[in-house]
Amino acid sequence: MRTSDVMSEIIPKNIISEALSLIKFNSDGLVPAIAQQHDTGENLMLAWMNKESVAETLTSGQVCYWSRSRGKLWRKGETSGQIQKLTELRIDCDGDTILLLVDQEGVACHTGRKNCFFTAVRSDGLKSIGDVLVNPDTLYPK
Amino acid sequence: MRTSDVMSEIIPKNIISEALSLIKFNSDGLVPAIAQQHDTGENLMLAWMNKESVAETLTSGQVCYWSRSRGKLWRKGETSGQIQKLTELRIDCDGDTILLLVDQEGVACHTGRKNCFFTAVRSDGLKSIGDVLVNPDTLYPK
Repeated sequence: MRTSDVMSEIIPKNIISEALSLIKFNSDGLVPAIAQQHDTGENLMLAWMNKESVAETLTSGQVCYWSRSRGKLWRKGETSGQIQKLTELRIDCDGDTILLLVDQEGVACHTGRKNCFFTAVRSDGLKSIGDVLVNPDTLYPK
Repeated sequence: MRTSDVMSEIIPKNIISEALSLIKFNSDGLVPAIAQQHDTGENLMLAWMNKESVAETLTSGQVCYWSRSRGKLWRKGETSGQIQKLTELRIDCDGDTILLLVDQEGVACHTGRKNCFFTAVRSDGLKSIGDVLVNPDTLYPK
């Protein structure tokens, strides 16, 4: 894991093109992307990226997904302020999954929890194991 | 993160049914599953699961995926011996991603590397950052 706080250097355009050519986007033009807190290893969330969002993320150093429900670029934190600064983008052996090492501002989950994986399947039932750290109403004011 | 080595207790059938009803499988009947080493936090791989593979994983305590390329259940390690013992299965807030905390025997990647995310996009190019720990030929004898 890299321990620097944020991506320290700009990724040149030709390197971004090389990365994009390695990624196998699915028939919808999307690839799943795991966001992992760079220093603690906590898995925060999984979302989807298209070519444009990968290029923007590598250019800006701030994570941008593709929102399947809204059908548009999703600059994580643009409403809630809970942005993800990119530490490093990695591609898996088959080119069909992206791993984003990030520095999460505040909480990743829209429920106000640090991460989205808070439902644990245990022998005595499904358990909610994540504390709500931020009131979701303050994240998304009406 | 749980620090026990393996899932310590059997998950009863009614809890498995409850978990399955919470998971939103896509139009192909699949959901992405992240495998993370339970004690170090290292992300090992992402693969896909269908209902049957989720149920088998929770019943056996050993991870079983759905192989999209082979179109059949993929009991991880059945050929290579590199099995994944389940520590805990978690479901995300939207029910459309699974996080598997596992204890990986040997290496997760078919290239002989511990994890599949070994291509890092850096300012000076795409860098292979994962050491090959096992000769792939010994994993998959011809």
